[in-house]
Amino acid sequence: MVNHELIKKITIYSFSNQVNSTNKTLDSLSDEQLALEIAPGKNSGIYLLGHLTAVHDFLLPLLGFGDKLFPELFEVFIKNSDKSGLVKPTAQQLRKQWSEVNAILLSKISALSVDDLFAKHTSVSEEDFVKEPHRNRLNVIMSRISHLAYHSGQMALLKKS
Amino acid sequence: MVNHELIKKITIYSFSNQVNSTNKTLDSLSDEQLALEIAPGKNSGIYLLGHLTAVHDFLLPLLGFGDKLFPELFEVFIKNSDKSGLVKPTAQQLRKQWSEVNAILLSKISALSVDDLFAKHTSVSEEDFVKEPHRNRLNVIMSRISHLAYHSGQMALLKKS
Repeated sequence: MVNHELIKKITIYSFSNQVNSTNKTLDSLSDEQLALEIAPGKNSGIYLLGHLTAVHDFLLPLLGFGDKLFPELFEVFIKNSDKSGLVKPTAQQLRKQWSEVNAILLSKISALSVDDLFAKHTSVSEEDFVKEPHRNRLNVIMSRISHLAYHSGQMALLKKS
Repeated sequence: MVNHELIKKITIYSFSNQVNSTNKTLDSLSDEQLALEIAPGKNSGIYLLGHLTAVHDFLLPLLGFGDKLFPELFEVFIKNSDKSGLVKPTAQQLRKQWSEVNAILLSKISALSVDDLFAKHTSVSEEDFVKEPHRNRLNVIMSRISHLAYHSGQMALLKKS
C-alpha cells in the first residue's frame, strides 16, 4: 500500500474513531442527563449534540456529497445559542439524526478516491485553491474531527464520576 | 505540490492550529482560574494542562525525537488522577513546559520527510508494522491532535461566560 492510500485509511480511521468514542459517551447518558448543562451556566448536552449534528450535516454540501439532511438544525444549533429560547428537537430525535448523518458521511468519505480527498471543498474558489491547495476535503475532515473531539470532551463531563 | 507533500503541510497546520487555539484559552485564564475544577467534581484546569504537557512530552520518544524533557510529569499527570494528593508543579512552570514541549515537537515534525511521517512509531514492532502500516507517526500525531482538542474543550469551560 502506497503512502497516499494510507492517508485515506488514516482519515477514515480518525473520523470513525472519534465518532465511536462520542457515541460511547452518548450511549452512557440518559436523555435527562443530556438535558443538563455540562458546567454551571454553560451549554447543555443536548445543545452540543444538536450543534455537532448540524455541523456534520453541513459537511454534506461542503464536501460535495449533496444537500443537508436536516437544514432546520442550522438555525437552532449554529446560528443561535443554547439559551435562544428556540424549540429544540427531542434527544431521541437528535440521537437518530446524529447517527444518520455520520453513517452517510462515513460511507461517502469511504467512497472517495485519494484524489477526491485532495480536491478542493465547495467553499473555496478555483482561483484560491491554486494558491492554497491545502484547502481540500481532507483538511476540512481533519478540522471537523478536532471540533468533534472538543465538544465530546465537554459532553463527557455529564457522565457520573 | 504533490498530494503527499500536502499531507505534511496539513499535519503541521492541524497540530499548530490546535496548539494555538489551546494557548489562546490558556492565555485568557489566570493561574487562579486554572486551579479551579472545569465542572463540579471534575479535573482542575491545572491537572489538564499537566496531563497535556506529559502526553505531548511522551510524543518525543514515541516519534523517535529523543528522550522526554519532563519525565517527572508522567507520575503526577498520567499515572495518577487529579485528586492523588501528589504535589503538582506551579501553573507558571507548567505553562513554560507546555510551551517548550510544543515548540520542540513542531520543529521536529516540520523537519520530518514525508517518508518519515509514514514510518512506524517506536511502540510498534517491525512485524506488526508490516501487517498494520497505518500505525505510523502521522496516525499518532492525528490522534494526539484529537486528544488535545478533547481537553481543550474542557479547559475552555473555565473562561468567564
